[in-house]
Amino acid sequence: MHLSRLDQFNYLRQHTLKLAAPLSAEDQCVQSMPDASPTKWHLAHTSWFFENVVLLPFLPGYEVYDVSFAYLFNSYYEALGARHPRPQRGLLTRPPLSQVLAYRHYVDTAMQQLLRHVEALSPQVLALIDLGQNHEQQHQELLQTDALHLLSCNPTLPAYDDGIQLTKGYSQTLQWLTFEEGLCTFGRAVDETGFGFDNETPAHQRFVQSFQIANRLVNCGEYLAFIQDDGYERAELWLSEGRAQVLNDGWQSPLYWLAPNDPRAAAGQWQVFGLGGVKALDPQAPVSNLSFYEASAFAEWAGARLPTEFEWEVASQHPGMHDMHGQVWQWTRSAYEPYPGFVPASGAVREYNGKFMVGQQVLRGSSLATPVHHSRHTYRNFFPASARWQFSGLRLAKDI
Amino acid sequence: MHLSRLDQFNYLRQHTLKLAAPLSAEDQCVQSMPDASPTKWHLAHTSWFFENVVLLPFLPGYEVYDVSFAYLFNSYYEALGARHPRPQRGLLTRPPLSQVLAYRHYVDTAMQQLLRHVEALSPQVLALIDLGQNHEQQHQELLQTDALHLLSCNPTLPAYDDGIQLTKGYSQTLQWLTFEEGLCTFGRAVDETGFGFDNETPAHQRFVQSFQIANRLVNCGEYLAFIQDDGYERAELWLSEGRAQVLNDGWQSPLYWLAPNDPRAAAGQWQVFGLGGVKALDPQAPVSNLSFYEASAFAEWAGARLPTEFEWEVASQHPGMHDMHGQVWQWTRSAYEPYPGFVPASGAVREYNGKFMVGQQVLRGSSLATPVHHSRHTYRNFFPASARWQFSGLRLAKDI
Amino acid sequence: MHLSRLDQFNYLRQHTLKLAAPLSAEDQCVQSMPDASPTKWHLAHTSWFFENVVLLPFLPGYEVYDVSFAYLFNSYYEALGARHPRPQRGLLTRPPLSQVLAYRHYVDTAMQQLLRHVEALSPQVLALIDLGQNHEQQHQELLQTDALHLLSCNPTLPAYDDGIQLTKGYSQTLQWLTFEEGLCTFGRAVDETGFGFDNETPAHQRFVQSFQIANRLVNCGEYLAFIQDDGYERAELWLSEGRAQVLNDGWQSPLYWLAPNDPRAAAGQWQVFGLGGVKALDPQAPVSNLSFYEASAFAEWAGARLPTEFEWEVASQHPGMHDMHGQVWQWTRSAYEPYPGFVPASGAVREYNGKFMVGQQVLRGSSLATPVHHSRHTYRNFFPASARWQFSGLRLAKDI
Amino acid sequence: MHLSRLDQFNYLRQHTLKLAAPLSAEDQCVQSMPDASPTKWHLAHTSWFFENVVLLPFLPGYEVYDVSFAYLFNSYYEALGARHPRPQRGLLTRPPLSQVLAYRHYVDTAMQQLLRHVEALSPQVLALIDLGQNHEQQHQELLQTDALHLLSCNPTLPAYDDGIQLTKGYSQTLQWLTFEEGLCTFGRAVDETGFGFDNETPAHQRFVQSFQIANRLVNCGEYLAFIQDDGYERAELWLSEGRAQVLNDGWQSPLYWLAPNDPRAAAGQWQVFGLGGVKALDPQAPVSNLSFYEASAFAEWAGARLPTEFEWEVASQHPGMHDMHGQVWQWTRSAYEPYPGFVPASGAVREYNGKFMVGQQVLRGSSLATPVHHSRHTYRNFFPASARWQFSGLRLAKDI
Repeated sequence: MHLSRLDQFNYLRQHTLKLAAPLSAEDQCVQSMPDASPTKWHLAHTSWFFENVVLLPFLPGYEVYDVSFAYLFNSYYEALGARHPRPQRGLLTRPPLSQVLAYRHYVDTAMQQLLRHVEALSPQVLALIDLGQNHEQQHQELLQTDALHLLSCNPTLPAYDDGIQLTKGYSQTLQWLTFEEGLCTFGRAVDETGFGFDNETPAHQRFVQSFQIANRLVNCGEYLAFIQDDGYERAELWLSEGRAQVLNDGWQSPLYWLAPNDPRAAAGQWQVFGLGGVKALDPQAPVSNLSFYEASAFAEWAGARLPTEFEWEVASQHPGMHDMHGQVWQWTRSAYEPYPGFVPASGAVREYNGKFMVGQQVLRGSSLATPVHHSRHTYRNFFPASARWQFSGLRLAKDI
Repeated sequence: MHLSRLDQFNYLRQHTLKLAAPLSAEDQCVQSMPDASPTKWHLAHTSWFFENVVLLPFLPGYEVYDVSFAYLFNSYYEALGARHPRPQRGLLTRPPLSQVLAYRHYVDTAMQQLLRHVEALSPQVLALIDLGQNHEQQHQELLQTDALHLLSCNPTLPAYDDGIQLTKGYSQTLQWLTFEEGLCTFGRAVDETGFGFDNETPAHQRFVQSFQIANRLVNCGEYLAFIQDDGYERAELWLSEGRAQVLNDGWQSPLYWLAPNDPRAAAGQWQVFGLGGVKALDPQAPVSNLSFYEASAFAEWAGARLPTEFEWEVASQHPGMHDMHGQVWQWTRSAYEPYPGFVPASGAVREYNGKFMVGQQVLRGSSLATPVHHSRHTYRNFFPASARWQFSGLRLAKDI
Repeated sequence: MHLSRLDQFNYLRQHTLKLAAPLSAEDQCVQSMPDASPTKWHLAHTSWFFENVVLLPFLPGYEVYDVSFAYLFNSYYEALGARHPRPQRGLLTRPPLSQVLAYRHYVDTAMQQLLRHVEALSPQVLALIDLGQNHEQQHQELLQTDALHLLSCNPTLPAYDDGIQLTKGYSQTLQWLTFEEGLCTFGRAVDETGFGFDNETPAHQRFVQSFQIANRLVNCGEYLAFIQDDGYERAELWLSEGRAQVLNDGWQSPLYWLAPNDPRAAAGQWQVFGLGGVKALDPQAPVSNLSFYEASAFAEWAGARLPTEFEWEVASQHPGMHDMHGQVWQWTRSAYEPYPGFVPASGAVREYNGKFMVGQQVLRGSSLATPVHHSRHTYRNFFPASARWQFSGLRLAKDI
Repeated sequence: MHLSRLDQFNYLRQHTLKLAAPLSAEDQCVQSMPDASPTKWHLAHTSWFFENVVLLPFLPGYEVYDVSFAYLFNSYYEALGARHPRPQRGLLTRPPLSQVLAYRHYVDTAMQQLLRHVEALSPQVLALIDLGQNHEQQHQELLQTDALHLLSCNPTLPAYDDGIQLTKGYSQTLQWLTFEEGLCTFGRAVDETGFGFDNETPAHQRFVQSFQIANRLVNCGEYLAFIQDDGYERAELWLSEGRAQVLNDGWQSPLYWLAPNDPRAAAGQWQVFGLGGVKALDPQAPVSNLSFYEASAFAEWAGARLPTEFEWEVASQHPGMHDMHGQVWQWTRSAYEPYPGFVPASGAVREYNGKFMVGQQVLRGSSLATPVHHSRHTYRNFFPASARWQFSGLRLAKDI
């Protein structure tokens, strides 16, 4: 079925509200750490993006909903003015949630006005609307991971949604698929149809050495074996920075695992906290909420390594691969760098991706929290090596 | 009019809710700094106190409302078990406000059951109920100062209550009242009737040298003159720790003053943020929200000094003194120490006061946020020298 | 024997060098923590004091040794200009030790020139010279405690001086001496002959309640019993701030005690590191290197309390008291506050004491590292409640 | 001339001492920041490396000089036991410099014994000796950069060596050399003769897009123009992390530049502090002591970008390139990652390079402080993006 742009927009915006629905106004206001944002802030910021990037420049006569929002809900766009400090987003008890919802409605109405005459819109405006929608899809995922982190800070470990249907693990024999060396093309052409972020461009050639890659993700049972083999204590398995963090922060398992004797929910067995609350650890489910350091140490322990983002992209087009999308983001060995010939998008959205191209690692694929239609085999997600609050796991690779 | 104990209790508990009423569920949930607590936490903790100190030991058959609350809402009573870390009180989006209100109601009902047969209660139980009520009155004041701090972190500076009637400044000529040296009695006898905290006991003698003390508080106009005379830049006026803090934190005025060019509310003149929102600075209003360091530096600049808590207590019984109570707490030169012969209260409430007797300064009097009937001339409030978020000002004294 | 002022001065200055002698140029250069200073800095700063406070104002024609030293070796005198930041004193590898010694010699020569005509010197100059000498005596003690701290940071635990003769413990039955309440005079008159610091003035009356005080110090055997009775784990014994520090810093014994299994010098028994190196714990030696928090918790455990500084001063003039001086400084329950009528010294030395009169506790007595003739029963030493690197112990007191 | 292995070894070890010679024992002991190490530590650690990696395993009957040194002078080799914490290296005033020199002599004597019968040594031992020598050469450079940092912390800005002959700038017209796209081979074969680190292996193919690269380094005059064009204030030029650091640390110029009004050496013109002391800024000298962030922002300002490490390696073999070596290390756009097929060296030296392969950027070339014969066009140096205390500059590149 083909949705009109207006329908697409409306569906997207409704979906964000649906994701926020299990959370109270209190849940939606609080910020649990500087890296995470309150739900209410996500709701407002995604609207701010449409307001400042689309409506103000391109809808004649548009009047801003509230002049203070330009400051309150800018994330990091220096070109769009000063902004409220990120670690203090959770102090914004005002505007109340009800007003942020009214703001969304106001922006929606204006956007609908624009989209009702979509044929009159220039390709530039359409591209910015596409960007705004993909931007909101990114925040739909963050809304869930940030909310989960907040709930995990509560000693009572409340569920985001008891009835949530999470993907389940299933038995899948691990197979090593072999890829021969060769010149391949990666990324997206600048003028390719369909949406892509600037960091996926331009399409370009790379020489990739022969490699093997696992046809499935590492699962919780395998990761538990790593823990039980003293994986967190054996310095030789870890990158130096990772070792330091393990010692400093006392890491002994993935972020949301509860040890058998955890005082919050002692069960005599390992459990995992997730969007559906505390559940018994499922050995066949993909391991999640790992840092890059942990993924790398596990791979070392397993006698393998992480794939590069290019190996992942090559393999992603092969039929025998499982769970490339929709379960967990997969850490790669690749640092987040510009592609050869990369030119950032122009205008206010120039800052969208390029200015983060140092000090982060690329993740490929997508997760259970990634919106449908937001996945691509060229998609480049990125987080610092220490980040654990995303749905991040791994897939193994090997030299031949 | 004489209120029964039951009526007193009901009035007290209602008053706390009335103070919380101007705040949304979001406002009541967020914690703006480790020193401050969310309103919702105050609502729950004061109920927790009655539940754990009065109901559980003394109401036969009482069942706790929720077992997790013993952990969540303990403040610092080691004897009553483990507790949620203070800096993370704001992460408790659950239980929701509605449930905390239900908790209050549940506790109230049980307390009412007890108080309906007040004649059957032992002096010990009555004393603990008195303590619980005075404890809640203390939190009534903190609820307001903590809420004000939270609102001050919002760039839009919303008012707690636009219609609030704050005390106003008035013209009052400063006079120096003279007190001759002599032996005086301070504090409260252990067996004195009426309520007092353990830190006010025992009554004891001290020799006080002759001194002079101002009949009124230092006002905003005088403090502005200090600022304009470069008071914050002149090292010789400051205690060494205070000087370090001024430089480190960039202090240039009391906590809630807005300079004429403040970007949040530029007005071309000094303004002050308070419970009623942003108002023009009133030169005759008492200066408030000072640290001890600032109070001390001002006194030095004025060729005077802060009174000791004992000078304040002597003077408090003198007719010509203005605003000893009900405007701002008054920093004294006295560190918070036990009185000679001090013995902490026994049982769980042993930790109420004594364990804080180091590293803090005594403030005397009471403030506009102190509940009626909660003031006494023997009352000893205490905060670290750097604290500025209380309604704290000063009164000058001099040697003769 | 009566020493001339010139002889006194020469002896003092030689003694400082003698104390530095066991330390290499490397030892004398390094700073082990922000609170401690390098020996070389002590050597230079004490000379800087004479240069800036005595020679420059009062020796006609005196030329400063090196203009950069005014900046490098000022400690905290704002009136004498900008200064090198305290935590960075250890980065001053230049000037080298040899040049600092030459600086000392240069200053000594000029001072000797002044002191050879002592009869020509005004009382003001003589008082400043006295102050400079007492100042240097204070630094003689700090030189030792700072050096000991530095050496304690070395895993090999080198001795400051193997042959050092430390005071030894001896059997002394504990007796409680009783003092009746009454008005007493404390401190020193402003015009009293002999040297005293401004913070000991003025002489003034206080009313002291009846009390008991121990005739001897708490010893290591007693403190070990406190440790073995889980003293560091029992929250009810500790001030709230002390408890937080114990948990945060992992304190389990006095600063320089080595547990029987300490990896640096495992001996199967408790040992103590001191100026003479690592020695077996002597149960009868006074316990030392305690924070105020630990002293206070021990007293609580022992069913007693710390004396006030005034109780100590009253008792100090009584014949039956042992070890009031020359072993360890004794923490008192008294915060460091100005005496009634206190007026700081005038001129550059105004900042000597008064600006520290907040947030610290008074210690009375003197220690094994205090120079002879630097002890007085009116002497008020002061450190923050958390300080442990001084030779600080305790004596118990009780209410009656 | 061909030096025997013994002569090479002796020359190397003497050269380290020669580099330390301008520094006093005090200079050699102090640590100015956690990233930098004291000279004495470098002297000891390089000897420790020979002792533990070569002598203990391969010289029969070798006895360690001092058992405590295994702990004190291990840098980061987990497989070789526990180690003294890096930020506390500067607290090791013992062993004294004289003893460290004796340690060096002792190790030298044993190594000479081994090297006198070089024909009897296995290839494995020879490779470890080579590694030890290259390791010491790396520390020769660090010794200088760490010493310079220490001296820069002294307000008097003493010169490391007044008479040092630093390379001088010279007029060199900037030319853009063009390289066509193609498959090229990078790195070193595992079995290539001559020394190389494991991180330079294996030789492998990459496809490199067409690019242009500058034939010379960016010089101080150009960098000054960037500063004067408000380069440090213009957010759009900076990576997000870099912008945050500029604001947080107040960066306004390269690390050792002194603004015309710098209080330490006000000269009315820009100056630069270096190994030879403070000198007037030479506009034609290569800019140095930049972070990656600054290099990247400058390139953006100049309408160019940093080269990848592979572009640099391609260009390095081209005749028209100037100053690829011997002036400043050149930041590249490449994150420090393993080459395809990378296998770390085995045994204790396994930890030499591989465990740092995350969160750092590659620098290529070599600097004025790099020992002769330590440069290679395949050499991969690496530091965090924020590091500024190395002799690090840049060369521009461009897409075509």
